[in-house]
Amino acid sequence: MTKHIYIYSPSGAVRDRAAFRRGIARLKTLGHEVEVDAAALASHLRFAGDDDTRLAAIHRAAASGADVALITRGGYGLTRLLAHIHYKVLGKAIDQGTQFVGMSDFTALQLAVLARTGQVTWAGPALCEGFGVSDQADAADGHGAGARERHGPDEIMEACFDDMITGQGEGTGWRQSREAPQNPAASIASGARPGVSFTMKHSTLWGGNLAVLCSLVGTPFLPQIKGGILFLEDVAEHPYRIERMLTQLLHAGILGAQKAIVLGQFTQYKLGSHDKGFKLATVVNWLRGQVKAPVLTNLPFGHVPTKVLLPVGAQVDLAVEGRDAFLLWGHRH
Amino acid sequence: MTKHIYIYSPSGAVRDRAAFRRGIARLKTLGHEVEVDAAALASHLRFAGDDDTRLAAIHRAAASGADVALITRGGYGLTRLLAHIHYKVLGKAIDQGTQFVGMSDFTALQLAVLARTGQVTWAGPALCEGFGVSDQADAADGHGAGARERHGPDEIMEACFDDMITGQGEGTGWRQSREAPQNPAASIASGARPGVSFTMKHSTLWGGNLAVLCSLVGTPFLPQIKGGILFLEDVAEHPYRIERMLTQLLHAGILGAQKAIVLGQFTQYKLGSHDKGFKLATVVNWLRGQVKAPVLTNLPFGHVPTKVLLPVGAQVDLAVEGRDAFLLWGHRH
Repeated sequence: MTKHIYIYSPSGAVRDRAAFRRGIARLKTLGHEVEVDAAALASHLRFAGDDDTRLAAIHRAAASGADVALITRGGYGLTRLLAHIHYKVLGKAIDQGTQFVGMSDFTALQLAVLARTGQVTWAGPALCEGFGVSDQADAADGHGAGARERHGPDEIMEACFDDMITGQGEGTGWRQSREAPQNPAASIASGARPGVSFTMKHSTLWGGNLAVLCSLVGTPFLPQIKGGILFLEDVAEHPYRIERMLTQLLHAGILGAQKAIVLGQFTQYKLGSHDKGFKLATVVNWLRGQVKAPVLTNLPFGHVPTKVLLPVGAQVDLAVEGRDAFLLWGHRH
Repeated sequence: MTKHIYIYSPSGAVRDRAAFRRGIARLKTLGHEVEVDAAALASHLRFAGDDDTRLAAIHRAAASGADVALITRGGYGLTRLLAHIHYKVLGKAIDQGTQFVGMSDFTALQLAVLARTGQVTWAGPALCEGFGVSDQADAADGHGAGARERHGPDEIMEACFDDMITGQGEGTGWRQSREAPQNPAASIASGARPGVSFTMKHSTLWGGNLAVLCSLVGTPFLPQIKGGILFLEDVAEHPYRIERMLTQLLHAGILGAQKAIVLGQFTQYKLGSHDKGFKLATVVNWLRGQVKAPVLTNLPFGHVPTKVLLPVGAQVDLAVEGRDAFLLWGHRH
């Protein structure tokens, strides 16, 4: 099904133009009509153009009438703009059928839109890292034929993108990490015994990048969600920093107000000799001791190729059966 | 003047025991009586003992009756403890003359004490990095005689520590960075022209490590200071992250509520090719465009050897004469 996809740059400057071109070509190969914003390749310092340029690009994306407004990449730059965005314009565009898709720094805009308009955007890929992946195996790594090679965009991500675009997707399922797939105490509290299934109905799904979300705490741009399902991911943050950020959400009363916490992928950090066994699992176990809500793991979302698309701000059901978890939002068209 | 100094570890585990021993020896050489907490060298994962151990150490420090309670080091660990600290006990100890001194992760405790008790602690050195510096020039750097060598603890820091301990210190002065020493617009707003002196009277001095302070936003552990003078420093944070944190303080209404913002030392970050000219000065200039209050620079405080001691929560006067700035708090004994 041909869709109109608008490509724009609200955050960091695109440096990898080959990935940018491959991403556009890939979307066209998938049958879509691709419109590229005039400032998509702008560059000012580390940003995709100065603040006015990026603000105008966001508002052009909202005015484009496209089916999907897709960011080129994340990086940094959106928090600077939050006080100057016309949320009503974005809200109207969403009302009229434009789906805003992105992640990482884009979390700032997604949560601000949710806070100001209550409307749904999609946590999902950016153009360059999602659709612009080379289909040439990286010869430089020398692993040869049997090794793990990157063959273009991830199939699961593309299938989820297609589900979102056609409105056919009704949810997503995944398998949690083997160690302690859920918080036994929490499962009991929620009426389910360990290893036994439980379901939570009609909760607001929200979240995104942990560092970006935390940078909105205390500001008017963080939605005040009670009884929600909070999903989190991050990249290049040491587990002690992940824990410090979770502690902020805990002390701010945000974690305690949620029905469930769903941890996605936390990647590209480096443990050191000083850690002496302190690791991401330590943080997950600590978190489970702090909140009554179940803490689920291994959601396929984050700075990884294989990721699902998630409707930020939508009402969802969460179903857990042992290690298997499902987020269900039904048809959204 | 001999003082009783209590050494304890509320945050990260001490790994550099030589620095620990040198620090204690140095304090004794300066004539002080040094008492070391039983768990000062405890180690659990990356922490100086588990949470109960570190909580007990903090409360022992408060019960010690010492003139100064000095942390061994920062690191990470205090935010985890904030909900379990007996603030009244700490407040009483401060009332009875114990000065709590530290920085970095310790910012969390200092700000929580200020929020809960309104009492003053001191931003200043930790034992290991402050007093435990080797007095042997580092031969391995091969710079030879004329080069910058480390000859034991910093003289200015030690003089400021002595001022604090004797109650003789009445303030501190420093010279701001050469570029744009103050915000001209702000100076005009505050009644002073650029290059002309201005003074602010009776404002609450507060602040510390920017990342730790930001991790308290939205929680009950951040003091609500209006008309204050906010000082900030950080280490190993890229300027874009410094800007994102300042943006949080801006959007949370914290920066706008201050009379002045005083930037200390921001060190040990690395700019990359993607930055294309984005640097710390970019952030300072951006900040000056966001707030009406003057933004001062180059306060000698942070993760650097030469640093002053600052009374967090005290009423101070700020005087600026061109590049020269003074924070004055009068006798505190």
